[in-house]
Amino acid sequence: MLPRFASAWVKDWRSYLSDSGEFVQSLERGLAVIRAFTRERPQLTLTDAAAATGLTRATARRFLMTLASLGYATTDGKHWRLTARVLDLGHSYLASLGLPEIVVDHLDRVAQAVHESASAAVLDGDDIVYVARVESRKIMRVQITVGTRFPAYVTSMGRVLLADLDPSAAERILRASDRRSLTTHTTTEVSELMSELSRVREAGFSLVDQELEMGLRSLAVPVRDGSGRVVAAINVSTTAAGAPGETLESVLPALLAAQSNIEAELASLVR
Amino acid sequence: MLPRFASAWVKDWRSYLSDSGEFVQSLERGLAVIRAFTRERPQLTLTDAAAATGLTRATARRFLMTLASLGYATTDGKHWRLTARVLDLGHSYLASLGLPEIVVDHLDRVAQAVHESASAAVLDGDDIVYVARVESRKIMRVQITVGTRFPAYVTSMGRVLLADLDPSAAERILRASDRRSLTTHTTTEVSELMSELSRVREAGFSLVDQELEMGLRSLAVPVRDGSGRVVAAINVSTTAAGAPGETLESVLPALLAAQSNIEAELASLVR
Repeated sequence: MLPRFASAWVKDWRSYLSDSGEFVQSLERGLAVIRAFTRERPQLTLTDAAAATGLTRATARRFLMTLASLGYATTDGKHWRLTARVLDLGHSYLASLGLPEIVVDHLDRVAQAVHESASAAVLDGDDIVYVARVESRKIMRVQITVGTRFPAYVTSMGRVLLADLDPSAAERILRASDRRSLTTHTTTEVSELMSELSRVREAGFSLVDQELEMGLRSLAVPVRDGSGRVVAAINVSTTAAGAPGETLESVLPALLAAQSNIEAELASLVR
Repeated sequence: MLPRFASAWVKDWRSYLSDSGEFVQSLERGLAVIRAFTRERPQLTLTDAAAATGLTRATARRFLMTLASLGYATTDGKHWRLTARVLDLGHSYLASLGLPEIVVDHLDRVAQAVHESASAAVLDGDDIVYVARVESRKIMRVQITVGTRFPAYVTSMGRVLLADLDPSAAERILRASDRRSLTTHTTTEVSELMSELSRVREAGFSLVDQELEMGLRSLAVPVRDGSGRVVAAINVSTTAAGAPGETLESVLPALLAAQSNIEAELASLVR
Protein backbone atom coordinates (compact mmCIF):
# COMPACT_ATOMS: atom_id res chain seq x y z
CA MET A 1 0.00 0.00 0.00
CA LEU A 2 1.36 3.39 -0.91
CA PRO A 3 1.22 5.98 1.84
CA ARG A 4 -0.45 9.32 1.21
CA PHE A 5 1.98 11.95 0.06
CA ALA A 6 1.64 15.50 1.23
CA SER A 7 2.86 18.47 -0.75
CA ALA A 8 1.71 21.19 1.65
CA TRP A 9 4.75 21.00 3.88
CA VAL A 10 7.27 21.05 1.05
CA LYS A 11 6.06 24.49 -0.03
CA ASP A 12 8.44 26.31 2.24
CA TRP A 13 11.39 24.12 1.42
CA ARG A 14 12.59 26.43 -1.27
CA SER A 15 13.37 29.22 1.19
CA TYR A 16 14.67 26.78 3.80
CA LEU A 17 16.92 25.12 1.23
CA SER A 18 18.12 28.45 -0.14
CA ASP A 19 18.91 29.76 3.33
CA SER A 20 20.84 26.63 4.22
CA GLY A 21 22.64 26.59 0.88
CA GLU A 22 21.12 23.20 0.04
CA PHE A 23 18.95 24.28 -2.89
CA VAL A 24 20.45 23.02 -6.15
CA GLN A 25 19.95 26.07 -8.34
CA SER A 26 21.65 24.44 -11.33
CA LEU A 27 18.97 21.79 -11.42
CA GLU A 28 16.22 24.43 -11.36
CA ARG A 29 17.93 26.30 -14.19
CA GLY A 30 18.50 23.19 -16.29
CA LEU A 31 14.85 22.16 -16.02
CA ALA A 32 13.83 25.73 -16.93
CA VAL A 33 15.98 25.50 -20.07
CA ILE A 34 14.19 22.26 -21.08
CA ARG A 35 10.83 23.97 -20.51
CA ALA A 36 11.84 26.95 -22.64
CA PHE A 37 11.19 24.79 -25.74
CA THR A 38 7.53 24.92 -26.81
CA ARG A 39 5.33 24.46 -29.85
CA GLU A 40 5.87 28.12 -30.69
CA ARG A 41 9.61 27.90 -30.00
CA PRO A 42 10.69 24.43 -31.18
CA GLN A 43 14.27 25.62 -31.65
CA LEU A 44 16.15 28.29 -29.76
CA THR A 45 19.25 30.36 -30.30
CA LEU A 46 21.34 31.20 -27.23
CA THR A 47 19.67 34.62 -27.21
CA ASP A 48 16.20 33.00 -27.29
CA ALA A 49 17.12 30.58 -24.50
CA ALA A 50 18.53 33.37 -22.37
CA ALA A 51 15.42 35.52 -22.91
CA ALA A 52 13.06 32.64 -22.10
CA THR A 53 14.81 31.66 -18.88
CA GLY A 54 16.24 34.92 -17.58
CA LEU A 55 19.75 33.46 -17.68
CA THR A 56 22.71 35.19 -19.31
CA ARG A 57 23.69 33.92 -22.76
CA ALA A 58 26.88 32.41 -21.32
CA THR A 59 24.94 30.54 -18.65
CA ALA A 60 22.27 29.38 -21.09
CA ARG A 61 25.11 28.09 -23.30
CA ARG A 62 26.63 26.04 -20.46
CA PHE A 63 23.26 24.44 -19.76
CA LEU A 64 22.47 23.72 -23.40
CA MET A 65 25.94 22.25 -23.96
CA THR A 66 25.53 20.12 -20.85
CA LEU A 67 22.11 18.92 -22.06
CA ALA A 68 23.64 18.16 -25.48
CA SER A 69 26.54 16.23 -23.98
CA LEU A 70 23.99 14.16 -22.01
CA GLY A 71 21.95 13.52 -25.18
CA TYR A 72 18.93 15.68 -24.26
CA ALA A 73 19.58 18.43 -26.82
CA THR A 74 21.26 18.88 -30.16
CA THR A 75 22.43 21.83 -32.25
CA ASP A 76 23.48 22.86 -35.72
CA GLY A 77 25.89 25.34 -34.15
CA LYS A 78 23.36 28.13 -33.94
CA HIS A 79 19.92 26.68 -33.19
CA TRP A 80 19.22 24.23 -30.38
CA ARG A 81 16.50 21.55 -30.21
CA LEU A 82 15.47 18.95 -27.64
CA THR A 83 15.91 15.26 -28.47
CA ALA A 84 13.58 12.31 -27.86
CA ARG A 85 15.67 11.45 -24.80
CA VAL A 86 13.72 14.10 -22.90
CA LEU A 87 10.74 11.75 -23.14
CA ASP A 88 12.58 9.36 -20.82
CA LEU A 89 12.01 11.81 -17.98
CA GLY A 90 8.22 11.84 -18.36
CA HIS A 91 8.39 8.10 -18.91
CA SER A 92 10.02 7.70 -15.50
CA TYR A 93 6.95 9.30 -13.97
CA LEU A 94 4.44 7.29 -16.00
CA ALA A 95 6.27 4.03 -15.32
CA SER A 96 6.49 4.80 -11.61
CA LEU A 97 2.79 5.62 -11.59
CA GLY A 98 1.91 2.25 -13.15
CA LEU A 99 -1.66 3.47 -13.51
CA PRO A 100 -1.79 4.26 -17.27
CA GLU A 101 -1.01 0.65 -18.16
CA ILE A 102 -3.89 -0.53 -16.06
CA VAL A 103 -6.49 1.99 -17.21
CA VAL A 104 -5.81 2.14 -20.94
CA ASP A 105 -7.60 -1.12 -21.79
CA HIS A 106 -10.61 -0.07 -19.77
CA LEU A 107 -10.68 3.39 -21.36
CA ASP A 108 -10.52 1.67 -24.71
CA ARG A 109 -13.65 -0.28 -23.89
CA VAL A 110 -15.42 2.90 -22.75
CA ALA A 111 -14.44 4.76 -25.92
CA GLN A 112 -15.66 1.87 -28.02
CA ALA A 113 -18.96 1.62 -26.15
CA VAL A 114 -19.87 5.31 -26.30
CA HIS A 115 -17.98 6.35 -29.45
CA GLU A 116 -16.31 9.24 -27.64
CA SER A 117 -12.78 9.88 -26.31
CA ALA A 118 -12.03 8.58 -22.81
CA SER A 119 -9.23 9.81 -20.54
CA ALA A 120 -7.62 9.48 -17.12
CA ALA A 121 -6.04 12.31 -15.14
CA VAL A 122 -4.42 13.06 -11.80
CA LEU A 123 -4.29 16.27 -9.79
CA ASP A 124 -1.11 18.38 -9.77
CA GLY A 125 -1.51 21.58 -7.76
CA ASP A 126 -4.57 23.33 -9.19
CA ASP A 127 -4.33 21.54 -12.54
CA ILE A 128 -5.38 18.15 -13.79
CA VAL A 129 -2.78 16.34 -15.89
CA TYR A 130 -3.79 13.68 -18.44
CA VAL A 131 -2.00 10.37 -17.83
CA ALA A 132 -3.88 8.24 -20.37
CA ARG A 133 -6.22 8.89 -23.27
CA VAL A 134 -8.03 6.85 -25.90
CA GLU A 135 -9.31 8.87 -28.86
CA SER A 136 -12.67 8.28 -30.44
CA ARG A 137 -13.08 7.99 -34.16
CA LYS A 138 -14.84 11.34 -34.42
CA ILE A 139 -13.18 14.02 -36.45
CA MET A 140 -13.98 17.04 -34.26
CA ARG A 141 -11.91 16.84 -31.12
CA VAL A 142 -9.71 18.83 -28.81
CA GLN A 143 -6.00 18.11 -29.20
CA ILE A 144 -5.17 16.44 -25.90
CA THR A 145 -2.24 14.14 -25.16
CA VAL A 146 -0.64 12.59 -22.11
CA GLY A 147 0.80 15.52 -20.16
CA THR A 148 -1.87 18.03 -21.23
CA ARG A 149 -3.05 20.26 -18.37
CA PHE A 150 -6.33 22.00 -17.63
CA PRO A 151 -7.41 23.95 -14.55
CA ALA A 152 -9.02 21.53 -12.10
CA TYR A 153 -11.91 23.85 -11.09
CA VAL A 154 -13.46 23.87 -14.56
CA THR A 155 -13.13 20.19 -15.54
CA SER A 156 -15.15 17.13 -14.57
CA MET A 157 -12.01 15.13 -13.67
CA GLY A 158 -10.69 18.07 -11.63
CA ARG A 159 -13.90 18.30 -9.62
CA VAL A 160 -13.90 14.56 -8.93
CA LEU A 161 -10.31 14.79 -7.70
CA LEU A 162 -10.92 17.94 -5.64
CA ALA A 163 -14.05 16.37 -4.12
CA ASP A 164 -11.88 13.60 -2.64
CA LEU A 165 -9.64 16.07 -0.80
CA ASP A 166 -10.24 17.39 2.67
CA PRO A 167 -12.67 20.33 2.05
CA SER A 168 -10.21 22.84 3.52
CA ALA A 169 -7.49 21.61 1.14
CA ALA A 170 -9.90 21.77 -1.80
CA GLU A 171 -10.92 25.31 -0.86
CA ARG A 172 -7.27 26.39 -0.59
CA ILE A 173 -6.63 25.07 -4.11
CA LEU A 174 -9.76 26.74 -5.50
CA ARG A 175 -8.82 30.09 -3.93
CA ALA A 176 -5.32 29.87 -5.36
CA SER A 177 -6.62 28.96 -8.85
CA ASP A 178 -6.73 31.48 -11.64
CA ARG A 179 -10.53 31.18 -11.99
CA ARG A 180 -11.84 32.75 -15.19
CA SER A 181 -15.12 32.72 -17.06
CA LEU A 182 -13.92 30.62 -19.97
CA THR A 183 -17.50 30.50 -21.26
CA THR A 184 -20.76 32.10 -20.12
CA HIS A 185 -21.42 28.84 -18.21
CA THR A 186 -18.20 28.77 -16.14
CA THR A 187 -18.58 28.66 -12.36
CA THR A 188 -15.85 30.82 -10.82
CA GLU A 189 -17.20 31.58 -7.31
CA VAL A 190 -15.39 29.54 -4.64
CA SER A 191 -18.57 29.08 -2.59
CA GLU A 192 -20.49 27.74 -5.59
CA LEU A 193 -17.61 25.47 -6.51
CA MET A 194 -17.45 24.14 -2.93
CA SER A 195 -21.21 23.32 -3.08
CA GLU A 196 -20.63 21.61 -6.41
CA LEU A 197 -17.82 19.52 -4.86
CA SER A 198 -20.26 18.36 -2.14
CA ARG A 199 -22.74 17.31 -4.80
CA VAL A 200 -19.99 15.50 -6.71
CA ARG A 201 -18.85 13.71 -3.53
CA GLU A 202 -22.40 12.56 -2.85
CA ALA A 203 -23.35 11.64 -6.42
CA GLY A 204 -20.06 9.91 -7.21
CA PHE A 205 -19.65 11.66 -10.55
CA SER A 206 -19.14 15.14 -12.02
CA LEU A 207 -20.89 16.47 -15.10
CA VAL A 208 -19.44 19.69 -16.50
CA ASP A 209 -21.55 21.28 -19.21
CA GLN A 210 -19.79 23.79 -21.48
CA GLU A 211 -17.84 25.45 -18.68
CA LEU A 212 -14.41 24.80 -20.25
CA GLU A 213 -15.47 25.29 -23.85
CA MET A 214 -18.83 25.93 -25.56
CA GLY A 215 -20.21 22.77 -27.15
CA LEU A 216 -18.13 20.50 -24.90
CA ARG A 217 -19.64 18.36 -22.14
CA SER A 218 -17.69 16.03 -19.90
CA LEU A 219 -18.56 13.37 -17.34
CA ALA A 220 -16.06 11.96 -14.81
CA VAL A 221 -15.96 9.40 -12.01
CA PRO A 222 -13.22 8.72 -9.45
CA VAL A 223 -11.07 5.59 -9.35
CA ARG A 224 -10.00 4.30 -5.92
CA ASP A 225 -7.19 1.92 -5.01
CA GLY A 226 -7.50 -0.93 -2.51
CA SER A 227 -7.21 1.53 0.40
CA GLY A 228 -10.16 3.63 -0.78
CA ARG A 229 -7.92 6.51 -1.82
CA VAL A 230 -8.81 8.24 -5.10
CA VAL A 231 -5.79 7.72 -7.36
CA ALA A 232 -7.19 9.15 -10.59
CA ALA A 233 -10.32 10.32 -12.37
CA ILE A 234 -11.59 8.87 -15.64
CA ASN A 235 -13.90 10.73 -17.99
CA VAL A 236 -15.65 10.88 -21.32
CA SER A 237 -15.87 14.15 -23.19
CA THR A 238 -18.62 14.60 -25.71
CA THR A 239 -20.47 17.28 -27.63
CA ALA A 240 -23.22 19.17 -25.83
CA ALA A 241 -25.75 18.34 -28.56
CA GLY A 242 -28.54 16.81 -26.49
CA ALA A 243 -29.62 17.57 -22.91
CA PRO A 244 -27.16 16.84 -20.06
CA GLY A 245 -29.50 14.08 -18.87
CA GLU A 246 -29.06 12.25 -22.17
CA THR A 247 -25.27 12.33 -21.78
CA LEU A 248 -25.60 10.93 -18.26
CA GLU A 249 -27.85 8.15 -19.48
CA SER A 250 -25.67 7.16 -22.41
CA VAL A 251 -22.22 7.55 -20.85
CA LEU A 252 -22.43 6.94 -17.08
CA PRO A 253 -23.02 3.15 -17.26
CA ALA A 254 -19.86 2.62 -19.34
CA LEU A 255 -17.81 4.84 -17.00
CA LEU A 256 -19.10 3.06 -13.89
CA ALA A 257 -18.30 -0.32 -15.42
CA ALA A 258 -14.74 0.85 -16.15
CA GLN A 259 -14.45 2.30 -12.64
CA SER A 260 -15.45 -0.99 -11.08
CA ASN A 261 -13.13 -3.05 -13.30
CA ILE A 262 -10.14 -0.76 -12.73
CA GLU A 263 -10.76 -0.72 -8.98
CA ALA A 264 -10.93 -4.52 -8.90
CA GLU A 265 -7.60 -4.64 -10.74
CA LEU A 266 -6.01 -2.07 -8.42
CA ALA A 267 -7.30 -3.91 -5.33
CA SER A 268 -5.71 -7.12 -6.59
CA LEU A 269 -2.35 -5.32 -6.69
CA VAL A 270 -2.39 -4.60 -2.96
CA ARG A 271 0.15 -6.81 -1.33
CA MET B 1 12.63 24.80 -42.86
CA LEU B 2 14.49 23.23 -39.99
CA PRO B 3 18.19 22.65 -40.55
CA ARG B 4 19.64 19.19 -40.04
CA PHE B 5 20.95 18.68 -36.54
CA ALA B 6 24.10 16.68 -35.98
CA SER B 7 24.82 14.82 -32.78
CA ALA B 8 28.16 13.32 -33.80
CA TRP B 9 30.20 16.38 -32.87
CA VAL B 10 28.61 16.86 -29.48
CA LYS B 11 29.87 13.48 -28.33
CA ASP B 12 33.16 14.84 -27.09
CA TRP B 13 31.61 17.83 -25.39
CA ARG B 14 31.39 16.07 -22.07
CA SER B 15 35.17 15.84 -21.71
CA TYR B 16 35.68 19.32 -23.19
CA LEU B 17 33.09 20.80 -20.82
CA SER B 18 34.50 18.94 -17.85
CA ASP B 19 38.03 20.06 -18.61
CA SER B 20 36.95 23.66 -18.98
CA GLY B 21 34.80 23.51 -15.83
CA GLU B 22 31.69 24.29 -17.88
CA PHE B 23 29.89 20.97 -17.44
CA VAL B 24 26.93 21.42 -15.09
CA GLN B 25 27.27 18.27 -13.01
CA SER B 26 24.30 19.18 -10.81
CA LEU B 27 22.01 19.03 -13.83
CA GLU B 28 23.32 15.59 -14.77
CA ARG B 29 22.80 14.38 -11.21
CA GLY B 30 19.30 15.84 -10.92
CA LEU B 31 18.20 14.18 -14.15
CA ALA B 32 19.73 10.90 -12.94
CA VAL B 33 17.64 11.17 -9.75
CA ILE B 34 14.46 11.58 -11.85
CA ARG B 35 15.44 8.55 -13.92
CA ALA B 36 16.01 6.47 -10.79
CA PHE B 37 12.22 6.11 -10.45
CA THR B 38 10.90 3.16 -12.48
CA ARG B 39 7.99 0.75 -12.63
CA GLU B 40 9.90 -1.54 -10.26
CA ARG B 41 10.90 1.36 -8.00
CA PRO B 42 7.93 3.77 -8.00
CA GLN B 43 8.98 5.20 -4.65
CA LEU B 44 12.44 5.54 -3.20
CA THR B 45 13.95 6.08 0.22
CA LEU B 46 17.12 8.19 0.41
CA THR B 47 19.10 4.96 0.60
CA ASP B 48 17.37 3.65 -2.56
CA ALA B 49 17.96 6.92 -4.40
CA ALA B 50 21.62 6.97 -3.38
CA ALA B 51 22.10 3.36 -4.47
CA ALA B 52 20.38 3.93 -7.83
CA THR B 53 22.39 7.04 -8.70
CA GLY B 54 25.74 6.46 -7.03
CA LEU B 55 25.31 9.65 -5.01
CA THR B 56 25.76 9.86 -1.25
CA ARG B 57 22.56 9.89 0.82
CA ALA B 58 23.17 13.53 1.75
CA THR B 59 23.55 14.53 -1.90
CA ALA B 60 20.54 12.47 -3.00
CA ARG B 61 18.57 14.25 -0.27
CA ARG B 62 19.55 17.71 -1.55
CA PHE B 63 18.42 16.78 -5.06
CA LEU B 64 15.15 15.21 -3.93
CA MET B 65 14.36 18.19 -1.71
CA THR B 66 15.14 20.55 -4.58
CA LEU B 67 12.89 18.53 -6.91
CA ALA B 68 10.15 18.60 -4.25
CA SER B 69 10.46 22.36 -3.75
CA LEU B 70 10.09 22.77 -7.53
CA GLY B 71 7.01 20.51 -7.55
CA TYR B 72 8.59 17.54 -9.38
CA ALA B 73 8.64 15.20 -6.37
CA THR B 74 6.79 14.65 -3.14
CA THR B 75 7.43 12.72 0.06
CA ASP B 76 5.75 11.33 3.16
CA GLY B 77 8.95 12.04 5.09
CA LYS B 78 10.52 8.69 4.28
CA HIS B 79 9.51 7.64 0.75
CA TRP B 80 9.81 9.86 -2.29
CA ARG B 81 7.71 9.81 -5.48
CA LEU B 82 7.69 11.81 -8.70
CA THR B 83 4.71 14.08 -9.47
CA ALA B 84 2.83 14.65 -12.72
CA ARG B 85 4.84 17.83 -13.21
CA VAL B 86 7.66 15.65 -14.57
CA LEU B 87 5.42 15.04 -17.61
CA ASP B 88 5.85 18.72 -18.51
CA LEU B 89 9.44 17.99 -19.46
CA GLY B 90 8.55 15.31 -21.99
CA HIS B 91 5.70 17.51 -23.13
CA SER B 92 8.20 20.25 -23.97
CA TYR B 93 9.84 17.86 -26.38
CA LEU B 94 6.61 16.61 -27.94
CA ALA B 95 5.25 20.14 -28.33
CA SER B 96 8.50 21.34 -29.88
CA LEU B 97 8.44 18.39 -32.25
CA GLY B 98 4.91 19.25 -33.45
CA LEU B 99 4.88 15.99 -35.38
CA PRO B 100 2.63 13.84 -33.13
CA GLU B 101 -0.29 16.23 -33.58
CA ILE B 102 -0.02 15.93 -37.32
CA VAL B 103 0.39 12.16 -37.53
CA VAL B 104 -2.12 10.95 -34.96
CA ASP B 105 -5.20 11.42 -37.16
CA HIS B 106 -3.52 9.62 -40.02
CA LEU B 107 -2.39 6.77 -37.76
CA ASP B 108 -5.93 6.54 -36.53
CA ARG B 109 -7.18 6.00 -40.07
CA VAL B 110 -4.52 3.34 -40.67
CA ALA B 111 -5.43 1.51 -37.45
CA GLN B 112 -9.07 1.62 -38.40
CA ALA B 113 -8.41 0.36 -41.94
CA VAL B 114 -6.22 -2.59 -40.99
CA HIS B 115 -7.51 -3.29 -37.46
CA GLU B 116 -4.00 -3.23 -36.00
CA SER B 117 -2.04 -0.72 -33.91
CA ALA B 118 -0.22 2.04 -35.80
CA SER B 119 2.71 4.09 -34.49
CA ALA B 120 5.24 6.79 -35.31
CA ALA B 121 8.82 6.90 -34.05
CA VAL B 122 12.02 8.90 -34.37
CA LEU B 123 15.64 7.83 -34.05
CA ASP B 124 17.59 8.63 -30.87
CA GLY B 125 21.12 7.23 -30.93
CA ASP B 126 20.75 3.51 -31.66
CA ASP B 127 17.16 3.38 -30.40
CA ILE B 128 13.81 4.27 -31.88
CA VAL B 129 11.50 6.24 -29.58
CA TYR B 130 7.71 6.17 -30.04
CA VAL B 131 6.24 9.68 -30.44
CA ALA B 132 2.66 8.68 -31.32
CA ARG B 133 0.61 5.52 -31.17
CA VAL B 134 -2.96 4.49 -31.90
CA GLU B 135 -3.98 1.15 -30.40
CA SER B 136 -6.07 -1.39 -32.23
CA ARG B 137 -9.06 -3.04 -30.61
CA LYS B 138 -7.31 -6.40 -30.40
CA ILE B 139 -6.73 -7.82 -26.96
CA MET B 140 -3.25 -9.30 -27.49
CA ARG B 141 -0.76 -6.49 -27.76
CA VAL B 142 2.60 -5.28 -26.58
CA GLN B 143 2.44 -2.54 -23.96
CA ILE B 144 3.88 0.43 -25.86
CA THR B 145 3.38 4.11 -25.07
CA VAL B 146 4.84 7.42 -26.21
CA GLY B 147 8.45 7.35 -25.00
CA THR B 148 8.89 3.57 -25.32
CA ARG B 149 12.25 2.60 -26.82
CA PHE B 150 13.41 -0.34 -28.90
CA PRO B 151 16.79 -0.99 -30.54
CA ALA B 152 16.70 0.46 -34.08
CA TYR B 153 18.51 -2.47 -35.76
CA VAL B 154 15.74 -4.96 -34.99
CA THR B 155 12.62 -2.86 -35.74
CA SER B 156 10.96 -1.89 -39.02
CA MET B 157 10.81 1.80 -38.04
CA GLY B 158 14.45 1.71 -36.98
CA ARG B 159 15.54 0.27 -40.31
CA VAL B 160 13.55 2.87 -42.23
CA LEU B 161 15.20 5.64 -40.19
CA LEU B 162 18.70 4.13 -40.46
CA ALA B 163 18.24 3.66 -44.22
CA ASP B 164 17.84 7.42 -44.59
CA LEU B 165 21.18 8.15 -42.95
CA ASP B 166 24.49 8.39 -44.71
CA PRO B 167 25.58 4.69 -44.91
CA SER B 168 28.73 5.38 -42.89
CA ALA B 169 26.64 6.96 -40.12
CA ALA B 170 24.20 4.03 -40.21
CA GLU B 171 27.08 1.55 -40.00
CA ARG B 172 28.59 3.42 -37.04
CA ILE B 173 25.26 3.18 -35.19
CA LEU B 174 24.84 -0.51 -36.03
CA ARG B 175 28.38 -1.30 -34.83
CA ALA B 176 27.77 0.56 -31.57
CA SER B 177 24.41 -1.19 -31.00
CA ASP B 178 24.04 -4.01 -28.52
CA ARG B 179 22.95 -6.47 -31.22
CA ARG B 180 21.46 -9.64 -29.77
CA SER B 181 19.54 -12.59 -31.17
CA LEU B 182 16.21 -11.70 -29.58
CA THR B 183 14.60 -14.56 -31.53
CA THR B 184 15.96 -17.23 -33.86
CA HIS B 185 15.08 -14.85 -36.75
CA THR B 186 17.07 -11.81 -35.56
CA THR B 187 19.69 -10.41 -37.94
CA THR B 188 22.70 -9.30 -35.88
CA GLU B 189 25.53 -9.20 -38.46
CA VAL B 190 26.41 -5.62 -39.45
CA SER B 191 27.07 -6.59 -43.08
CA GLU B 192 23.68 -8.30 -43.39
CA LEU B 193 21.97 -5.35 -41.74
CA MET B 194 23.71 -2.93 -44.14
CA SER B 195 22.44 -4.98 -47.12
CA GLU B 196 18.98 -4.92 -45.60
CA LEU B 197 19.16 -1.12 -45.25
CA SER B 198 19.98 -0.89 -48.99
CA ARG B 199 16.95 -2.99 -49.79
CA VAL B 200 14.79 -0.84 -47.50
CA ARG B 201 16.11 2.35 -49.14
CA GLU B 202 15.26 1.00 -52.59
CA ALA B 203 11.88 -0.54 -51.71
CA GLY B 204 10.69 2.38 -49.61
CA PHE B 205 9.51 0.16 -46.74
CA SER B 206 10.83 -2.26 -44.14
CA LEU B 207 9.19 -5.52 -43.19
CA VAL B 208 10.55 -7.15 -40.03
CA ASP B 209 9.29 -10.66 -39.43
CA GLN B 210 9.60 -11.99 -35.87
CA GLU B 211 13.08 -10.56 -35.28
CA LEU B 212 12.06 -8.54 -32.21
CA GLU B 213 9.59 -11.05 -30.82
CA MET B 214 8.22 -14.39 -32.07
CA GLY B 215 4.74 -14.01 -33.51
CA LEU B 216 5.20 -10.28 -34.17
CA ARG B 217 5.53 -8.82 -37.66
CA SER B 218 5.92 -5.14 -38.42
CA LEU B 219 5.87 -2.98 -41.55
CA ALA B 220 7.20 0.60 -41.69
CA VAL B 221 7.54 3.42 -44.21
CA PRO B 222 9.40 6.73 -43.89
CA VAL B 223 7.74 10.15 -43.68
CA ARG B 224 9.55 13.09 -45.31
CA ASP B 225 9.10 16.80 -44.75
CA GLY B 226 9.00 19.40 -47.52
CA SER B 227 12.79 19.28 -47.87
CA GLY B 228 12.80 15.53 -48.51
CA ARG B 229 14.34 14.80 -45.13
CA VAL B 230 12.97 11.77 -43.24
CA VAL B 231 11.47 13.16 -40.03
CA ALA B 232 9.83 9.99 -38.69
CA ALA B 233 8.81 6.46 -39.52
CA ILE B 234 5.26 5.13 -39.26
CA ASN B 235 4.40 1.48 -38.89
CA VAL B 236 1.80 -1.18 -38.30
CA SER B 237 2.58 -4.12 -36.08
CA THR B 238 0.59 -7.28 -36.54
CA THR B 239 0.67 -10.97 -35.73
CA ALA B 240 2.79 -13.23 -37.92
CA ALA B 241 -0.14 -15.53 -38.62
CA GLY B 242 -0.13 -15.57 -42.44
CA ALA B 243 2.80 -15.27 -44.85
CA PRO B 244 4.81 -11.98 -44.91
CA GLY B 245 3.45 -11.33 -48.41
CA GLU B 246 -0.09 -11.27 -47.05
CA THR B 247 0.85 -8.64 -44.47
CA LEU B 248 2.44 -6.53 -47.20
CA GLU B 249 -0.67 -6.80 -49.34
CA SER B 250 -3.10 -5.98 -46.58
CA VAL B 251 -1.14 -3.26 -44.74
CA LEU B 252 1.16 -1.45 -47.19
CA PRO B 253 -1.59 0.41 -49.10
CA ALA B 254 -2.95 2.00 -45.88
CA LEU B 255 0.58 2.95 -44.74
CA LEU B 256 1.44 4.49 -48.12
CA ALA B 257 -1.79 6.49 -48.10
CA ALA B 258 -0.98 7.82 -44.62
CA GLN B 259 2.61 8.58 -45.72
CA SER B 260 1.39 10.60 -48.66
CA ASN B 261 -1.21 12.49 -46.61
CA ILE B 262 1.21 13.29 -43.78
CA GLU B 263 3.86 14.42 -46.27
CA ALA B 264 1.37 16.71 -48.01
CA GLU B 265 0.50 18.22 -44.63
CA LEU B 266 4.16 18.66 -43.67
CA ALA B 267 4.96 20.22 -47.05
CA SER B 268 2.17 22.74 -46.56
CA LEU B 269 3.86 23.82 -43.30
CA VAL B 270 7.05 24.89 -45.05
CA ARG B 271 7.21 28.64 -44.98
